[in-house]
Amino acid sequence: MTLPSEPTNDVPRPDAHPSASAGLARPLQGIIVPMVTPLVDRDTLDTVGLERLVEHILSGGVNGLFVLGTTGEAPSLSYRLRRELIDRTCRQVRGRVPVLVGITDTAFVESVQLAGVAADAGAAAVVVAPPYYFPAGQAELLEYLKHLVPQLPLPLFLYNMPSHTKLAFELETMREAAKLQGLVGLKDSSANMIYFQCLLSLFRDRPDFTLLVGPEQLLGQAVLLGAHGGVNGGGNLHPRLYVGLYEAARDRDLDRMAALQRQVMQISTGIYSVGRFGSSYLKGLKCALSILGICSDFMAEPFHRFNPPERTRIERELRDLGLLE
Amino acid sequence: MTLPSEPTNDVPRPDAHPSASAGLARPLQGIIVPMVTPLVDRDTLDTVGLERLVEHILSGGVNGLFVLGTTGEAPSLSYRLRRELIDRTCRQVRGRVPVLVGITDTAFVESVQLAGVAADAGAAAVVVAPPYYFPAGQAELLEYLKHLVPQLPLPLFLYNMPSHTKLAFELETMREAAKLQGLVGLKDSSANMIYFQCLLSLFRDRPDFTLLVGPEQLLGQAVLLGAHGGVNGGGNLHPRLYVGLYEAARDRDLDRMAALQRQVMQISTGIYSVGRFGSSYLKGLKCALSILGICSDFMAEPFHRFNPPERTRIERELRDLGLLE
Amino acid sequence: MTLPSEPTNDVPRPDAHPSASAGLARPLQGIIVPMVTPLVDRDTLDTVGLERLVEHILSGGVNGLFVLGTTGEAPSLSYRLRRELIDRTCRQVRGRVPVLVGITDTAFVESVQLAGVAADAGAAAVVVAPPYYFPAGQAELLEYLKHLVPQLPLPLFLYNMPSHTKLAFELETMREAAKLQGLVGLKDSSANMIYFQCLLSLFRDRPDFTLLVGPEQLLGQAVLLGAHGGVNGGGNLHPRLYVGLYEAARDRDLDRMAALQRQVMQISTGIYSVGRFGSSYLKGLKCALSILGICSDFMAEPFHRFNPPERTRIERELRDLGLLE
Amino acid sequence: MTLPSEPTNDVPRPDAHPSASAGLARPLQGIIVPMVTPLVDRDTLDTVGLERLVEHILSGGVNGLFVLGTTGEAPSLSYRLRRELIDRTCRQVRGRVPVLVGITDTAFVESVQLAGVAADAGAAAVVVAPPYYFPAGQAELLEYLKHLVPQLPLPLFLYNMPSHTKLAFELETMREAAKLQGLVGLKDSSANMIYFQCLLSLFRDRPDFTLLVGPEQLLGQAVLLGAHGGVNGGGNLHPRLYVGLYEAARDRDLDRMAALQRQVMQISTGIYSVGRFGSSYLKGLKCALSILGICSDFMAEPFHRFNPPERTRIERELRDLGLLE
Repeated sequence: MTLPSEPTNDVPRPDAHPSASAGLARPLQGIIVPMVTPLVDRDTLDTVGLERLVEHILSGGVNGLFVLGTTGEAPSLSYRLRRELIDRTCRQVRGRVPVLVGITDTAFVESVQLAGVAADAGAAAVVVAPPYYFPAGQAELLEYLKHLVPQLPLPLFLYNMPSHTKLAFELETMREAAKLQGLVGLKDSSANMIYFQCLLSLFRDRPDFTLLVGPEQLLGQAVLLGAHGGVNGGGNLHPRLYVGLYEAARDRDLDRMAALQRQVMQISTGIYSVGRFGSSYLKGLKCALSILGICSDFMAEPFHRFNPPERTRIERELRDLGLLE
Repeated sequence: MTLPSEPTNDVPRPDAHPSASAGLARPLQGIIVPMVTPLVDRDTLDTVGLERLVEHILSGGVNGLFVLGTTGEAPSLSYRLRRELIDRTCRQVRGRVPVLVGITDTAFVESVQLAGVAADAGAAAVVVAPPYYFPAGQAELLEYLKHLVPQLPLPLFLYNMPSHTKLAFELETMREAAKLQGLVGLKDSSANMIYFQCLLSLFRDRPDFTLLVGPEQLLGQAVLLGAHGGVNGGGNLHPRLYVGLYEAARDRDLDRMAALQRQVMQISTGIYSVGRFGSSYLKGLKCALSILGICSDFMAEPFHRFNPPERTRIERELRDLGLLE
Repeated sequence: MTLPSEPTNDVPRPDAHPSASAGLARPLQGIIVPMVTPLVDRDTLDTVGLERLVEHILSGGVNGLFVLGTTGEAPSLSYRLRRELIDRTCRQVRGRVPVLVGITDTAFVESVQLAGVAADAGAAAVVVAPPYYFPAGQAELLEYLKHLVPQLPLPLFLYNMPSHTKLAFELETMREAAKLQGLVGLKDSSANMIYFQCLLSLFRDRPDFTLLVGPEQLLGQAVLLGAHGGVNGGGNLHPRLYVGLYEAARDRDLDRMAALQRQVMQISTGIYSVGRFGSSYLKGLKCALSILGICSDFMAEPFHRFNPPERTRIERELRDLGLLE
Repeated sequence: MTLPSEPTNDVPRPDAHPSASAGLARPLQGIIVPMVTPLVDRDTLDTVGLERLVEHILSGGVNGLFVLGTTGEAPSLSYRLRRELIDRTCRQVRGRVPVLVGITDTAFVESVQLAGVAADAGAAAVVVAPPYYFPAGQAELLEYLKHLVPQLPLPLFLYNMPSHTKLAFELETMREAAKLQGLVGLKDSSANMIYFQCLLSLFRDRPDFTLLVGPEQLLGQAVLLGAHGGVNGGGNLHPRLYVGLYEAARDRDLDRMAALQRQVMQISTGIYSVGRFGSSYLKGLKCALSILGICSDFMAEPFHRFNPPERTRIERELRDLGLLE
C-alpha cells in the first residue's frame, strides 16, 4: 500500500486573509443561514437541490450563508463531500453574500485543511466549535485556539454548542481568546440568554466583534439586547421571515416583532417537534424542504428521513404556515 | 479547484479479505493493548518509537493490539496519519498477534474507508463506538449498525464509551445488534459493572461472542465474572503485569490477583492521576513511555505533554513501581 | 419514648381557599421578591433583621413576597423555623402585598402541612417545585400534582427549577396540570427562554394563568415577550431597580430598560459571582444585605458566610453600584 | 398561631448514649438490609407488615438493618412517620442485630434531631448522605461533616449516592472526613468499582473503618476485593441469598459465588426491571413483598404501586425464582 501524500497545512500561511474575506463586514450583521446539506445518498450531493436551495435562501435577503454547521450535518459527511460542498456553494453564491465554512473537527490538522479549501474556494470566514470527543478543560481549549488561529487563512468565528460538544466557551476563555488576531466573532447556540448577555457586556468595547445567536426562537430578543444577528436554521425554509424579524428587532418595532415571533414559534413547535427524536429539528427541516420541492430529504447517518406519517404532519404544518398551498 | 476523486467504499465488499481475519479467535481472549500513537509533531508519526512500542508490548505476551482507540487519540489524528499508522503497525506486527483497528467516526463513509485500509493492511478486525456528535437514540444507533456492518470487510467489535460518545449501547440494542453477521464482540469502557454483568448474562449462550473490559482497574473482577479479557491502556507501559493479572483471574488464583491488582491500582493512582486534567490518563501514560525511552510524549491537540514538574512526579512513580532504576 | 401526635393534613380541606387568598390578583403581576431568610444561627431567625428586610423590600414598591424558596434556603431550614418564618413574615407584611409560601418538599405530607400553616398565617398562595430526591418521570410528577393540589388550602404556583430538582415541568405536563382547579401559575427558573416562550404560547388563552420568570437577568426580555413579572432575588437588595425594570418592560420603554438592565447585570456579575462557588449568588446576596445593615449574613448548612476578603469585594461592588457611600 | 417549642439538638451531646452503640462491631461485616418502609397509606405505617418484614429479614441471618435509606423511601416520609418507624423497628429487633438509621436531610437541624430519636430508640448508628437540594462543593461538604459529626449521639456511616444527591464523596474528602471521631464507615451506592477500589486502598491501614457496597449485583466482587459487606435491597425479599453470597465471597468459594450471583442477577433483571420507570427497583421490590404476603405495596409519593399487569409479571418472576409456589 502506498500512503497518499496529501499536502498538510501545518505551517502558518504568510499570505493569509486574502481578498476573499475582504468583503466580510465587521461586525457581520443580519441573518446568516446555516445551510442544510442536500444529499441524494450517503456520499453524493443533491447538486440541483443545492443550487435551488442557495437561490431560495438568497432570495430572502439574507446576509450570509454558513455551510457545514450542525444544521449542515457536517460531522456526518465525508471530507470529500465537504470539500465538494464548499466549492459548489461558493461558486453558486458568486460573492453575493459572504460564505462562512464550518471547520469543526476532532482533528486539528483536518480543520486547518478544510480552512485551506474554504479560502481557495473564496469563502469569507471559517467557523469552529471545540473539538468534541475528548473531555478537555478551558485551559486546553484556549491553548488549542492559540495554536489554531494563526494557522487559518481566513477570519474565524467561534461556535458555542455545548449540547453537542460537551464543552462551552466560558467567559474567561472568551476574554482571552478575543485577543487573538483573526478571531472576529462568536455564534452562541447555548440557548442560555444569561450567558449571552454576559458576552454582550464583555464585548461592549469591541464593536468590531460579531455576536450572533443560534436558536431562532431567541433571535428577536437577542438583537434587541445588542446581538448583531442570528444564524438560524429556519432561514433555509423561510428566509424572509427571519430577515424580517431581525429587521424589526433592529428597528425596535415591537409590534412587528411579536407578529413575526409568533410565526417563528409556529415553525419551531410545528416543523421541528414531530416525532420523539433529538433530531426532530433536522428531520423536520429537511422534510419541509423536500415537500416544498427545494431539495432532497436524504439524511446522513446516523439519522434517517421521516416516514410518510410524519411527512403528512409536516405538510399540514406548512399549509397552516401558508408556505404550501 | 479540482475535486479529488477518492474512491468510496459505499457498496458491500463481497471479496472481503477472508484470510486476514481468519486468525481471529472467537472468542478473542486475553489482553489486547489499546496502543498509544507515538507522534513527533501534530501530523508526523514517531516511527522509531512506534517500532519500539510495538516490540515492547508484544514482548509482554499480549494477545492483540488495538490501534486508533481513545488511548490512541484517534479522533485527534488526521486521516492520512491514521492510514499510515494502520499500515506501519500491521507491518511491524507481522501477524504475531491480531491487530484491531478503530474506525469510530462521526462520518459513516470515513468509517467504511478506514475499514478498507485496515483490511488491506492485514488487520484482523475493526472496532467502532457510536458516532459522537449528534445526540442519537437507540433506534437510530441500531439502524446505523445495520447499515454499517454489511459494508465492513472485517469482523467488528463494538466499543461502549458513553463518557466520550454521550451514547451507550443499551442492552436491548445489544440483543438486536448481536444478530448481525460480522459483529463478533464488545469492548465495554463504561466502568459500570452492573451493565457488564447484564452483558455476560445476555451472551451466556453465545460463547463465540467476545466480551472485553476497558478499565484496567476492573480487569481482574471482570475476567472472574466471565469476561474474555481486557483492553487495557496500562499494557503500553507494563504489558506483562496485565497479562499476569488476566491469567491469574482466568486461573482463579485470588492471591496472585490481589498482589497484581495492587500494582494496577498503583499505576492508576500514581501515573494516571497527576494534575487536575480529564486527560491525566493519556498524559501520564505518554509521559511514562517517554521517560522509559520507548516513544515520544508529543500529544495531539487539544492535549499537550506534561511539563517538567509533572514529569518529575511520573518519574518518581515509575521508580516506586520498579519500572525505572 | 412517646411518639408525638401532630395532626396531619392528609384529607381534603372542605373550607379551602378562604379569604386570605382573596387578595391574589389573577394573573399576579410585577415583582415578587424571593426573600432571603435572616438567621442568627442554624435554627434561630434574625427577627429584627427580618422586620427590616420586609420593610426594605416593601419600600421598593414590589408586588409580592415569596418566602421559603431557593433564595430563602428553605430546604436547609428546620420545619419549626419554617413555620416561625411564615408566621412572622405574614404578621409583618399585614396584607400590604400577597405573601407566597414555598412548600416544596420530598415528603408529600410535610408539603401539605406547611400549606396549612401558610393558610392559617394569612398567606395568599403556596409554591411547589417537584420533589427532588428520587428520579421521577413526568407521568409520576403529574399524578403527584393531581394528588397534591386538592389537598391545599391555598392557590398553588408551580416552580420550575431543574438545576436543583433534577426534574422539569415539561410542556405536556404543564398542559395537563393547568387543568387542575387551584393551580394558578408557574415560576420558571430554568433560564431557558425557548421553554419560556413555549409556555407563553401554551397559555395564550389563559390570561388568568400567571407566568413569572426567575433569573433576574431575563426579567426584561421575559416581560417584553408577555411574562407577568419576575421572582427576582436581587429584589432583596435593590427592590426599586427590579420594579423599575419590570415597569419599563411593561411600558415598552426600551431605552430605560437598557439602562436598568445594565445595573442588573452589574449586580449579577459583581455581587453574585464572587468566589468559585455554586452558592456565590446566595452568599453574595446575604453578604450585601449584611453590609447594608439590613440583616445577618449567617447561612444555613451546607453553606457558610463569606470571609473578610470576599466581603471587601462585595463592599466595593456596592459602592460602585451607588448602594453604599 | 402559637409556635411549637420543640427542643433542638443544636449542641454537642456529651452523654451520647454510649451503651446503645457498644454493640456495633468495627468493622461492621456481612449483610445489612436497607429495609423498605411498609405503608398502608401516605402517612400510616403498615405495622403488622413491618413486624413480619423484620422477622422475615432477620430469619435470613443478616447482620444488620438499615431503616430510612433510599430503599426505605425516607425522603418521601413525614418526620412523624420516620420517628414512629425508628421506634417500632428498634422495639421489634430487640437488639438481635444492630439497627442503622438514615438521617439524610437537606436540613442540618432535622438530621441532628432524627439522630437523637435514633439514639433514644436504641439504634446502633446513623447514616447520612450529602444534603441534596443545593449544589454544594467538596469543601462545603467536608465542612458540613465537621459540623455535623460532633452533634451526633451515635457513630456515623456516610452514604455515597450521587445519582440521587448530585454530589459524591470524593476521595480527598473521604481522606479528611475519616479523621473525624465518630465517623466509622461508608456505604457506597455509586456502582463505580474503580472508585470503590480506591476507597479500599485509601483505608487499607484503617481495619476499623467499614466499607460496604450498595448495589447487590456488585456484592460478590466487592467482598472479594476487600469490602466488609453489602447494604443490599434484595435482602428484604430473599435475605438468605445475599447472606449466602456474602459468605461465599468471604470464603473465596468462587463456584458457589457464581451460582448465587446468577440468582442475584435474575432478581435484578426480573424483579427490578419491570416497566420503564426510574423507580422500577422500588416498585418491584414492594410488589414482590406484597405478593409474598409480607407487607403492603403502598408507596409514598411521588411513586405509586404497580398495576395488575406488572404485578402478574412479578408473580411469574417470583415463581421462576422458586420464591412462590
